[in-house]
Amino acid sequence: MHEAPSSERNIRLVIAYDGTDFSGWQRQNGRRTVQGIIEAALAKLHKHPVKLSGSGRTDSGVHARAQVANFHTTIQRMEAERFIPALNSLLPKDVRITEASETSADFHARFSARLRTYRYFFITEKEANPWELRYAWHIRRHVDMALLADYSRLFRGEMDCTSFAAAADKSKSRFRYIANAHFFIEGNRLTFEISANAFLWNMVRSIVGTLIQCEEHGASERTVQDIIEGRKRALAGPTAPPEGLFLWRIEF
Amino acid sequence: MHEAPSSERNIRLVIAYDGTDFSGWQRQNGRRTVQGIIEAALAKLHKHPVKLSGSGRTDSGVHARAQVANFHTTIQRMEAERFIPALNSLLPKDVRITEASETSADFHARFSARLRTYRYFFITEKEANPWELRYAWHIRRHVDMALLADYSRLFRGEMDCTSFAAAADKSKSRFRYIANAHFFIEGNRLTFEISANAFLWNMVRSIVGTLIQCEEHGASERTVQDIIEGRKRALAGPTAPPEGLFLWRIEF
Repeated sequence: MHEAPSSERNIRLVIAYDGTDFSGWQRQNGRRTVQGIIEAALAKLHKHPVKLSGSGRTDSGVHARAQVANFHTTIQRMEAERFIPALNSLLPKDVRITEASETSADFHARFSARLRTYRYFFITEKEANPWELRYAWHIRRHVDMALLADYSRLFRGEMDCTSFAAAADKSKSRFRYIANAHFFIEGNRLTFEISANAFLWNMVRSIVGTLIQCEEHGASERTVQDIIEGRKRALAGPTAPPEGLFLWRIEF
Repeated sequence: MHEAPSSERNIRLVIAYDGTDFSGWQRQNGRRTVQGIIEAALAKLHKHPVKLSGSGRTDSGVHARAQVANFHTTIQRMEAERFIPALNSLLPKDVRITEASETSADFHARFSARLRTYRYFFITEKEANPWELRYAWHIRRHVDMALLADYSRLFRGEMDCTSFAAAADKSKSRFRYIANAHFFIEGNRLTFEISANAFLWNMVRSIVGTLIQCEEHGASERTVQDIIEGRKRALAGPTAPPEGLFLWRIEF
Protein backbone atom coordinates (compact mmCIF):
# COMPACT_ATOMS: atom_id res chain seq x y z
CA MET A 1 0.00 0.00 0.00
CA HIS A 2 1.02 3.55 -0.77
CA GLU A 3 2.39 5.31 2.33
CA ALA A 4 1.72 9.02 2.08
CA PRO A 5 4.35 11.35 3.49
CA SER A 6 2.91 13.30 6.42
CA SER A 7 2.84 16.54 4.37
CA GLU A 8 0.32 14.99 1.98
CA ARG A 9 -3.40 15.28 2.52
CA ASN A 10 -5.80 12.44 1.76
CA ILE A 11 -8.95 13.57 -0.08
CA ARG A 12 -12.10 11.49 -0.33
CA LEU A 13 -14.38 12.06 -3.30
CA VAL A 14 -17.94 10.96 -4.01
CA ILE A 15 -18.50 10.57 -7.75
CA ALA A 16 -21.60 10.18 -9.93
CA TYR A 17 -21.35 9.06 -13.53
CA ASP A 18 -23.40 8.01 -16.50
CA GLY A 19 -21.63 4.84 -17.65
CA THR A 20 -23.10 4.90 -21.18
CA ASP A 21 -20.04 6.30 -22.90
CA PHE A 22 -17.38 4.86 -20.57
CA SER A 23 -15.42 1.60 -20.79
CA GLY A 24 -16.04 1.19 -17.08
CA TRP A 25 -14.22 2.60 -14.05
CA GLN A 26 -10.74 1.19 -14.36
CA ARG A 27 -7.95 3.00 -16.21
CA GLN A 28 -7.10 1.29 -19.52
CA ASN A 29 -4.78 2.54 -22.21
CA GLY A 30 -6.63 4.08 -25.12
CA ARG A 31 -10.07 3.68 -23.52
CA ARG A 32 -12.34 6.32 -22.06
CA THR A 33 -12.70 5.23 -18.43
CA VAL A 34 -13.93 7.11 -15.36
CA GLN A 35 -10.75 6.59 -13.35
CA GLY A 36 -8.65 7.59 -16.37
CA ILE A 37 -10.59 10.78 -16.99
CA ILE A 38 -10.53 11.90 -13.32
CA GLU A 39 -6.81 11.10 -13.02
CA ALA A 40 -6.24 13.26 -16.12
CA ALA A 41 -8.13 16.12 -14.43
CA LEU A 42 -6.14 15.61 -11.21
CA ALA A 43 -2.87 15.64 -13.18
CA LYS A 44 -3.89 18.91 -14.83
CA LEU A 45 -4.68 20.43 -11.44
CA HIS A 46 -1.45 19.16 -9.79
CA LYS A 47 0.86 19.45 -12.80
CA HIS A 48 2.08 15.91 -12.01
CA PRO A 49 0.43 12.45 -12.14
CA VAL A 50 -1.94 11.60 -9.25
CA LYS A 51 -3.31 8.11 -8.54
CA LEU A 52 -6.99 7.73 -7.72
CA SER A 53 -8.36 4.61 -5.96
CA GLY A 54 -12.04 3.72 -6.24
CA SER A 55 -14.26 1.56 -4.04
CA GLY A 56 -15.89 -0.37 -6.87
CA ARG A 57 -14.62 -1.24 -10.33
CA THR A 58 -17.79 -0.83 -12.33
CA ASP A 59 -18.00 -2.42 -15.79
CA SER A 60 -18.47 -0.80 -19.15
CA GLY A 61 -21.91 0.83 -19.33
CA VAL A 62 -22.60 0.60 -15.59
CA HIS A 63 -23.53 3.85 -13.81
CA ALA A 64 -22.68 5.19 -10.36
CA ARG A 65 -24.76 7.34 -8.08
CA ALA A 66 -22.10 7.45 -5.35
CA GLN A 67 -18.78 5.86 -6.20
CA VAL A 68 -16.17 6.71 -3.55
CA ALA A 69 -12.51 7.31 -4.33
CA ASN A 70 -9.48 8.89 -2.69
CA PHE A 71 -6.19 10.49 -3.71
CA HIS A 72 -3.21 12.03 -1.94
CA THR A 73 -2.45 15.63 -2.70
CA THR A 74 0.45 18.01 -2.14
CA ILE A 75 -1.88 20.97 -2.65
CA GLN A 76 -2.04 22.66 0.76
CA ARG A 77 -3.86 25.94 0.37
CA MET A 78 -7.23 24.76 -0.81
CA GLU A 79 -10.21 23.66 1.24
CA ALA A 80 -11.14 20.07 0.42
CA GLU A 81 -14.56 20.97 -0.90
CA ARG A 82 -13.03 23.37 -3.41
CA PHE A 83 -11.95 20.23 -5.28
CA ILE A 84 -15.60 19.84 -6.34
CA PRO A 85 -15.78 22.86 -8.66
CA ALA A 86 -12.07 22.64 -9.55
CA LEU A 87 -12.43 19.08 -10.84
CA ASN A 88 -15.91 19.47 -12.31
CA SER A 89 -14.73 22.38 -14.44
CA LEU A 90 -12.13 20.02 -15.98
CA LEU A 91 -14.40 16.97 -16.30
CA PRO A 92 -16.95 16.11 -19.01
CA LYS A 93 -20.60 16.33 -18.01
CA ASP A 94 -21.11 12.57 -17.75
CA VAL A 95 -18.93 12.41 -14.65
CA ARG A 96 -19.45 14.70 -11.65
CA ILE A 97 -17.76 15.06 -8.29
CA THR A 98 -20.60 15.44 -5.78
CA GLU A 99 -18.59 15.54 -2.51
CA ALA A 100 -14.98 16.14 -1.50
CA SER A 101 -13.67 15.99 2.05
CA GLU A 102 -10.48 15.65 4.08
CA THR A 103 -9.98 12.12 5.38
CA SER A 104 -7.47 10.29 7.60
CA ALA A 105 -4.09 9.32 6.13
CA ASP A 106 -4.92 5.61 6.32
CA PHE A 107 -8.27 5.81 4.49
CA HIS A 108 -8.25 3.79 1.27
CA ALA A 109 -11.43 3.79 -0.84
CA ARG A 110 -10.92 0.19 -1.93
CA PHE A 111 -9.55 -1.48 1.21
CA SER A 112 -11.50 0.54 3.79
CA ALA A 113 -14.91 -0.12 2.19
CA ARG A 114 -17.00 -2.47 4.36
CA LEU A 115 -20.19 -2.66 2.38
CA ARG A 116 -21.00 -1.98 -1.25
CA THR A 117 -24.60 -1.49 -2.41
CA TYR A 118 -25.78 -1.76 -5.99
CA ARG A 119 -29.23 -1.05 -7.39
CA TYR A 120 -30.60 -2.52 -10.59
CA PHE A 121 -33.57 -0.81 -12.28
CA PHE A 122 -36.15 -2.39 -14.59
CA ILE A 123 -38.85 -1.07 -16.88
CA THR A 124 -41.82 -3.40 -16.86
CA GLU A 125 -44.09 -1.38 -19.22
CA LYS A 126 -44.29 -2.39 -22.89
CA GLU A 127 -42.96 0.93 -24.14
CA ALA A 128 -40.57 3.42 -22.54
CA ASN A 129 -38.90 6.72 -23.29
CA PRO A 130 -35.27 6.98 -24.40
CA TRP A 131 -34.24 8.76 -21.18
CA GLU A 132 -35.63 5.87 -19.13
CA LEU A 133 -34.02 3.20 -21.32
CA ARG A 134 -30.59 4.68 -20.70
CA TYR A 135 -30.83 3.77 -17.02
CA ALA A 136 -32.88 0.56 -16.81
CA TRP A 137 -33.40 -2.87 -18.33
CA HIS A 138 -36.54 -3.01 -20.43
CA ILE A 139 -38.04 -6.40 -19.55
CA ARG A 140 -41.49 -5.42 -20.92
CA ARG A 141 -43.57 -7.52 -18.51
CA HIS A 142 -44.93 -7.44 -15.00
CA VAL A 143 -43.25 -9.73 -12.53
CA ASP A 144 -44.36 -11.92 -9.67
CA MET A 145 -43.06 -9.97 -6.68
CA ALA A 146 -43.74 -12.80 -4.22
CA LEU A 147 -41.60 -15.19 -6.25
CA LEU A 148 -38.78 -12.66 -6.56
CA ALA A 149 -38.96 -12.11 -2.79
CA ASP A 150 -38.59 -15.88 -2.24
CA TYR A 151 -35.57 -16.00 -4.54
CA SER A 152 -33.80 -13.00 -3.06
CA ARG A 153 -34.10 -14.33 0.50
CA LEU A 154 -31.63 -17.05 -0.58
CA PHE A 155 -28.92 -14.41 -1.00
CA ARG A 156 -27.99 -13.78 2.59
CA GLY A 157 -24.81 -14.25 4.65
CA GLU A 158 -21.50 -15.83 3.70
CA MET A 159 -21.99 -17.49 0.29
CA ASP A 160 -19.98 -19.24 -2.37
CA CYS A 161 -20.85 -17.11 -5.41
CA THR A 162 -19.13 -19.24 -8.08
CA SER A 163 -22.38 -19.68 -10.03
CA PHE A 164 -22.46 -15.93 -10.59
CA ALA A 165 -18.77 -15.41 -11.37
CA ALA A 166 -17.66 -14.44 -14.87
CA ALA A 167 -15.84 -17.15 -16.83
CA ALA A 168 -12.62 -15.11 -16.66
CA ASP A 169 -12.88 -14.59 -12.89
CA LYS A 170 -9.54 -15.04 -11.13
CA SER A 171 -10.53 -14.34 -7.51
CA LYS A 172 -8.71 -16.45 -4.92
CA SER A 173 -11.94 -16.95 -3.01
CA ARG A 174 -15.42 -16.80 -4.44
CA PHE A 175 -17.03 -16.46 -1.03
CA ARG A 176 -18.69 -13.13 -0.39
CA TYR A 177 -20.75 -11.85 2.52
CA ILE A 178 -24.17 -10.69 1.33
CA ALA A 179 -25.80 -8.38 3.87
CA ASN A 180 -29.07 -7.91 2.04
CA ALA A 181 -30.78 -8.54 -1.31
CA HIS A 182 -34.32 -7.60 -2.17
CA PHE A 183 -36.70 -6.45 -4.89
CA PHE A 184 -38.97 -3.48 -4.33
CA ILE A 185 -41.14 -1.02 -6.22
CA GLU A 186 -40.23 2.65 -5.87
CA GLY A 187 -42.24 5.24 -7.74
CA ASN A 188 -43.61 2.68 -10.18
CA ARG A 189 -40.12 1.35 -10.90
CA LEU A 190 -39.08 -2.25 -10.16
CA THR A 191 -35.71 -2.21 -8.39
CA PHE A 192 -33.30 -4.84 -7.08
CA GLU A 193 -30.91 -3.81 -4.31
CA ILE A 194 -28.01 -5.90 -3.10
CA SER A 195 -25.38 -5.11 -0.46
CA ALA A 196 -22.23 -7.16 0.13
CA ASN A 197 -18.73 -6.75 1.49
CA ALA A 198 -17.51 -7.14 -2.09
CA PHE A 199 -18.67 -8.54 -5.43
CA LEU A 200 -17.14 -10.77 -8.04
CA TRP A 201 -16.79 -9.38 -11.53
CA ASN A 202 -20.24 -9.31 -13.23
CA MET A 203 -21.83 -10.85 -10.14
CA VAL A 204 -24.77 -8.47 -9.69
CA ARG A 205 -25.72 -8.66 -13.36
CA SER A 206 -25.47 -12.48 -13.31
CA ILE A 207 -27.73 -12.68 -10.26
CA VAL A 208 -30.24 -10.28 -11.83
CA GLY A 209 -30.26 -12.09 -15.18
CA THR A 210 -30.71 -15.43 -13.42
CA LEU A 211 -33.53 -14.35 -11.11
CA ILE A 212 -35.47 -12.63 -13.88
CA GLN A 213 -35.15 -15.71 -16.10
CA CYS A 214 -36.27 -18.01 -13.24
CA GLU A 215 -39.23 -15.74 -12.50
CA GLU A 216 -40.24 -15.69 -16.17
CA HIS A 217 -40.35 -19.50 -16.17
CA GLY A 218 -42.08 -19.63 -12.79
CA ALA A 219 -39.19 -21.64 -11.37
CA SER A 220 -39.38 -22.65 -7.73
CA GLU A 221 -37.23 -21.28 -4.92
CA ARG A 222 -35.61 -24.75 -4.88
CA THR A 223 -34.41 -24.25 -8.49
CA VAL A 224 -32.61 -21.05 -7.50
CA GLN A 225 -31.17 -22.80 -4.45
CA ASP A 226 -29.84 -25.54 -6.75
CA ILE A 227 -28.21 -22.96 -9.02
CA ILE A 228 -26.45 -21.40 -6.03
CA GLU A 229 -25.37 -24.73 -4.58
CA GLY A 230 -24.31 -26.13 -7.98
CA ARG A 231 -21.39 -23.68 -8.06
CA LYS A 232 -21.19 -23.63 -11.86
CA ARG A 233 -21.72 -20.53 -13.98
CA ALA A 234 -23.41 -22.68 -16.64
CA LEU A 235 -26.32 -23.35 -14.25
CA ALA A 236 -27.16 -19.67 -13.92
CA GLY A 237 -29.02 -17.47 -16.40
CA PRO A 238 -27.79 -14.74 -18.74
CA THR A 239 -25.95 -11.62 -17.58
CA ALA A 240 -28.38 -8.69 -17.35
CA PRO A 241 -27.44 -5.64 -19.48
CA PRO A 242 -25.20 -3.01 -17.88
CA GLU A 243 -27.48 0.03 -18.31
CA GLY A 244 -29.79 -1.01 -15.46
CA LEU A 245 -27.02 -1.13 -12.87
CA PHE A 246 -25.92 1.66 -10.51
CA LEU A 247 -23.20 1.58 -7.87
CA TRP A 248 -25.45 3.13 -5.26
CA ARG A 249 -23.69 3.48 -1.91
CA ILE A 250 -20.41 2.58 -0.17
CA GLU A 251 -20.13 2.16 3.59
CA PHE A 252 -16.85 2.28 5.52
CA MET B 1 -47.82 18.23 -51.52
CA HIS B 2 -47.75 14.49 -51.86
CA GLU B 3 -51.12 13.12 -52.97
CA ALA B 4 -51.57 9.64 -51.61
CA PRO B 5 -53.48 7.16 -53.81
CA SER B 6 -56.66 6.08 -52.06
CA SER B 7 -55.28 2.59 -51.37
CA GLU B 8 -52.61 4.08 -49.10
CA ARG B 9 -53.16 4.56 -45.40
CA ASN B 10 -51.85 7.60 -43.55
CA ILE B 11 -50.21 6.74 -40.22
CA ARG B 12 -49.55 9.28 -37.48
CA LEU B 13 -46.70 8.60 -35.07
CA VAL B 14 -45.75 10.18 -31.76
CA ILE B 15 -42.01 9.97 -31.21
CA ALA B 16 -39.75 10.51 -28.18
CA TYR B 17 -36.02 10.91 -28.56
CA ASP B 18 -32.88 11.74 -26.67
CA GLY B 19 -31.21 14.29 -28.95
CA THR B 20 -27.71 13.87 -27.43
CA ASP B 21 -26.32 11.65 -30.16
CA PHE B 22 -28.39 12.99 -33.07
CA SER B 23 -27.60 15.75 -35.58
CA GLY B 24 -31.16 16.93 -35.11
CA TRP B 25 -34.41 15.78 -36.71
CA GLN B 26 -33.91 16.47 -40.39
CA ARG B 27 -32.46 13.89 -42.79
CA GLN B 28 -28.88 14.80 -43.87
CA ASN B 29 -26.48 12.69 -45.87
CA GLY B 30 -23.90 10.99 -43.70
CA ARG B 31 -25.36 12.30 -40.43
CA ARG B 32 -27.24 10.40 -37.73
CA THR B 33 -30.61 12.17 -37.66
CA VAL B 34 -33.94 11.14 -36.17
CA GLN B 35 -35.87 11.43 -39.44
CA GLY B 36 -33.12 9.53 -41.26
CA ILE B 37 -33.06 6.69 -38.77
CA ILE B 38 -36.86 6.25 -38.70
CA GLU B 39 -37.06 6.42 -42.50
CA ALA B 40 -34.42 3.67 -42.62
CA ALA B 41 -36.57 1.54 -40.28
CA LEU B 42 -39.68 2.27 -42.40
CA ALA B 43 -37.78 1.29 -45.57
CA LYS B 44 -36.74 -1.98 -43.94
CA LEU B 45 -40.34 -2.70 -42.97
CA HIS B 46 -41.78 -1.76 -46.38
CA LYS B 47 -38.90 -2.98 -48.55
CA HIS B 48 -39.05 0.36 -50.41
CA PRO B 49 -38.28 3.98 -49.40
CA VAL B 50 -40.94 5.74 -47.29
CA LYS B 51 -40.99 9.48 -46.57
CA LEU B 52 -41.67 10.67 -43.04
CA SER B 53 -42.83 14.23 -42.29
CA GLY B 54 -42.34 15.70 -38.82
CA SER B 55 -44.09 18.60 -37.07
CA GLY B 56 -40.94 20.24 -35.74
CA ARG B 57 -37.39 20.22 -37.08
CA THR B 58 -35.44 20.06 -33.83
CA ASP B 59 -31.75 20.99 -33.86
CA SER B 60 -28.73 18.91 -33.04
CA GLY B 61 -28.81 17.92 -29.36
CA VAL B 62 -32.45 18.93 -28.80
CA HIS B 63 -34.77 16.28 -27.36
CA ALA B 64 -38.42 15.45 -28.01
CA ARG B 65 -41.01 14.14 -25.63
CA ALA B 66 -43.75 14.07 -28.27
CA GLN B 67 -42.68 14.86 -31.81
CA VAL B 68 -45.47 14.05 -34.27
CA ALA B 69 -44.85 12.65 -37.75
CA ASN B 70 -46.79 10.89 -40.50
CA PHE B 71 -46.13 8.57 -43.41
CA HIS B 72 -48.17 6.87 -46.10
CA THR B 73 -48.09 3.12 -46.18
CA THR B 74 -49.11 0.41 -48.62
CA ILE B 75 -49.14 -2.15 -45.78
CA GLN B 76 -52.78 -3.12 -45.39
CA ARG B 77 -52.96 -6.06 -42.99
CA MET B 78 -51.56 -4.50 -39.89
CA GLU B 79 -53.34 -2.54 -37.19
CA ALA B 80 -51.88 0.96 -36.91
CA GLU B 81 -50.70 0.45 -33.35
CA ARG B 82 -48.69 -2.59 -34.40
CA PHE B 83 -46.27 -0.09 -35.98
CA ILE B 84 -45.12 0.76 -32.43
CA PRO B 85 -43.38 -2.56 -31.67
CA ALA B 86 -42.51 -3.17 -35.34
CA LEU B 87 -40.59 0.10 -35.60
CA ASN B 88 -39.16 0.08 -32.06
CA SER B 89 -37.61 -3.33 -32.66
CA LEU B 90 -35.71 -1.80 -35.62
CA LEU B 91 -34.80 1.50 -33.93
CA PRO B 92 -31.96 2.30 -31.52
CA LYS B 93 -32.94 2.92 -27.91
CA ASP B 94 -32.50 6.70 -28.09
CA VAL B 95 -35.56 7.02 -30.32
CA ARG B 96 -38.91 5.44 -29.46
CA ILE B 97 -42.30 5.41 -31.12
CA THR B 98 -44.80 6.00 -28.32
CA GLU B 99 -48.05 6.13 -30.34
CA ALA B 100 -49.21 5.09 -33.80
CA SER B 101 -52.69 5.64 -35.19
CA GLU B 102 -54.65 5.76 -38.42
CA THR B 103 -55.29 9.33 -39.57
CA SER B 104 -57.18 11.02 -42.40
CA ALA B 105 -55.60 11.11 -45.86
CA ASP B 106 -55.11 14.88 -45.73
CA PHE B 107 -53.31 14.96 -42.36
CA HIS B 108 -49.78 16.32 -42.68
CA ALA B 109 -47.67 16.51 -39.51
CA ARG B 110 -45.95 19.69 -40.63
CA PHE B 111 -48.75 21.62 -42.34
CA SER B 112 -51.61 20.48 -40.10
CA ALA B 113 -49.89 21.46 -36.83
CA ARG B 114 -51.57 24.49 -35.26
CA LEU B 115 -49.55 24.90 -32.09
CA ARG B 116 -46.09 23.72 -31.10
CA THR B 117 -45.00 23.69 -27.46
CA TYR B 118 -41.41 23.51 -26.28
CA ARG B 119 -40.12 23.19 -22.74
CA TYR B 120 -36.71 24.28 -21.58
CA PHE B 121 -35.31 22.85 -18.31
CA PHE B 122 -32.71 24.42 -16.02
CA ILE B 123 -30.66 23.22 -13.07
CA THR B 124 -30.22 26.01 -10.56
CA GLU B 125 -28.23 24.05 -7.93
CA LYS B 126 -24.44 24.41 -7.85
CA GLU B 127 -23.82 20.73 -8.56
CA ALA B 128 -25.86 18.17 -10.49
CA ASN B 129 -25.74 14.54 -11.52
CA PRO B 130 -24.75 13.47 -15.04
CA TRP B 131 -28.24 12.13 -15.80
CA GLU B 132 -29.74 15.54 -14.98
CA LEU B 133 -27.12 17.44 -16.99
CA ARG B 134 -28.05 15.51 -20.12
CA TYR B 135 -31.51 17.08 -20.11
CA ALA B 136 -31.10 20.58 -18.66
CA TRP B 137 -28.99 23.73 -18.74
CA HIS B 138 -26.85 24.05 -15.63
CA ILE B 139 -27.09 27.75 -14.77
CA ARG B 140 -25.88 27.18 -11.18
CA ARG B 141 -27.83 30.01 -9.55
CA HIS B 142 -31.29 30.77 -8.28
CA VAL B 143 -33.33 33.14 -10.37
CA ASP B 144 -35.73 35.98 -9.74
CA MET B 145 -39.04 34.39 -10.73
CA ALA B 146 -40.94 37.69 -10.60
CA LEU B 147 -38.55 39.27 -13.09
CA LEU B 148 -38.73 36.25 -15.41
CA ALA B 149 -42.54 36.43 -15.21
CA ASP B 150 -42.40 40.11 -16.24
CA TYR B 151 -40.17 39.28 -19.20
CA SER B 152 -42.17 36.32 -20.43
CA ARG B 153 -45.43 38.31 -20.45
CA LEU B 154 -43.92 40.30 -23.33
CA PHE B 155 -44.00 37.20 -25.53
CA ARG B 156 -47.67 37.08 -26.40
CA GLY B 157 -49.63 37.31 -29.66
CA GLU B 158 -48.45 38.09 -33.19
CA MET B 159 -44.79 39.19 -32.92
CA ASP B 160 -41.89 40.03 -35.16
CA CYS B 161 -39.27 37.57 -33.86
CA THR B 162 -36.29 38.85 -35.89
CA SER B 163 -34.25 39.52 -32.72
CA PHE B 164 -34.38 35.79 -31.97
CA ALA B 165 -33.75 34.50 -35.49
CA ALA B 166 -30.49 32.73 -36.34
CA ALA B 167 -28.10 34.66 -38.58
CA ALA B 168 -28.67 32.14 -41.37
CA ASP B 169 -32.48 32.35 -41.10
CA LYS B 170 -34.17 32.53 -44.51
CA SER B 171 -37.83 32.66 -43.47
CA LYS B 172 -40.03 34.83 -45.69
CA SER B 173 -41.77 36.25 -42.63
CA ARG B 174 -40.36 36.45 -39.15
CA PHE B 175 -43.75 37.05 -37.58
CA ARG B 176 -44.96 34.23 -35.37
CA TYR B 177 -48.02 33.90 -33.17
CA ILE B 178 -47.02 33.18 -29.59
CA ALA B 179 -49.92 31.70 -27.62
CA ASN B 180 -48.16 31.49 -24.29
CA ALA B 181 -44.74 31.80 -22.66
CA HIS B 182 -44.01 31.35 -18.98
CA PHE B 183 -41.53 30.18 -16.38
CA PHE B 184 -42.58 27.80 -13.62
CA ILE B 185 -41.13 25.47 -11.01
CA GLU B 186 -42.13 21.82 -11.28
CA GLY B 187 -40.72 19.34 -8.81
CA ASN B 188 -37.84 21.63 -7.85
CA ARG B 189 -36.96 22.17 -11.51
CA LEU B 190 -37.06 25.61 -13.19
CA THR B 191 -38.85 25.29 -16.53
CA PHE B 192 -39.71 27.62 -19.40
CA GLU B 193 -42.63 26.71 -21.63
CA ILE B 194 -43.49 28.44 -24.86
CA SER B 195 -46.26 27.68 -27.37
CA ALA B 196 -46.50 29.21 -30.84
CA ASN B 197 -47.97 28.43 -34.25
CA ALA B 198 -44.38 27.93 -35.42
CA PHE B 199 -40.84 28.90 -34.47
CA LEU B 200 -37.88 30.31 -36.34
CA TRP B 201 -34.70 28.27 -36.36
CA ASN B 202 -33.00 28.54 -32.92
CA MET B 203 -35.74 30.85 -31.68
CA VAL B 204 -36.58 29.16 -28.38
CA ARG B 205 -32.93 28.84 -27.40
CA SER B 206 -32.31 32.51 -28.34
CA ILE B 207 -35.23 33.65 -26.21
CA VAL B 208 -34.10 31.49 -23.28
CA GLY B 209 -30.47 32.66 -23.50
CA THR B 210 -31.59 36.27 -23.70
CA LEU B 211 -34.03 36.15 -20.79
CA ILE B 212 -31.57 34.34 -18.51
CA GLN B 213 -28.85 36.86 -19.34
CA CYS B 214 -31.22 39.78 -18.71
CA GLU B 215 -32.32 38.26 -15.40
CA GLU B 216 -28.70 37.74 -14.33
CA HIS B 217 -28.02 41.45 -14.89
CA GLY B 218 -31.30 42.48 -13.28
CA ALA B 219 -32.38 44.16 -16.52
CA SER B 220 -35.77 45.83 -16.59
CA GLU B 221 -38.80 44.63 -18.52
CA ARG B 222 -38.24 47.70 -20.73
CA THR B 223 -34.80 46.34 -21.75
CA VAL B 224 -36.38 43.12 -22.96
CA GLN B 225 -39.08 45.10 -24.75
CA ASP B 226 -36.34 47.12 -26.50
CA ILE B 227 -34.59 43.91 -27.60
CA ILE B 228 -37.84 42.62 -29.11
CA GLU B 229 -38.66 45.91 -30.81
CA GLY B 230 -35.08 46.46 -32.04
CA ARG B 231 -35.49 43.55 -34.47
CA LYS B 232 -31.76 42.79 -34.59
CA ARG B 233 -30.22 39.50 -33.45
CA ALA B 234 -27.19 41.43 -32.12
CA LEU B 235 -29.39 43.02 -29.44
CA ALA B 236 -30.38 39.66 -27.95
CA GLY B 237 -28.31 37.42 -25.68
CA PRO B 238 -26.51 34.14 -26.36
CA THR B 239 -28.25 30.99 -27.62
CA ALA B 240 -28.98 28.64 -24.72
CA PRO B 241 -27.44 25.14 -25.05
CA PRO B 242 -29.52 22.47 -26.84
CA GLU B 243 -29.61 19.88 -24.04
CA GLY B 244 -32.19 21.81 -22.00
CA LEU B 245 -34.74 21.88 -24.82
CA PHE B 246 -37.59 19.41 -25.44
CA LEU B 247 -40.20 19.48 -28.20
CA TRP B 248 -43.02 18.86 -25.75
CA ARG B 249 -46.41 18.81 -27.50
CA ILE B 250 -48.00 19.40 -30.90
CA GLU B 251 -51.61 20.44 -31.32
CA PHE B 252 -53.59 20.09 -34.56
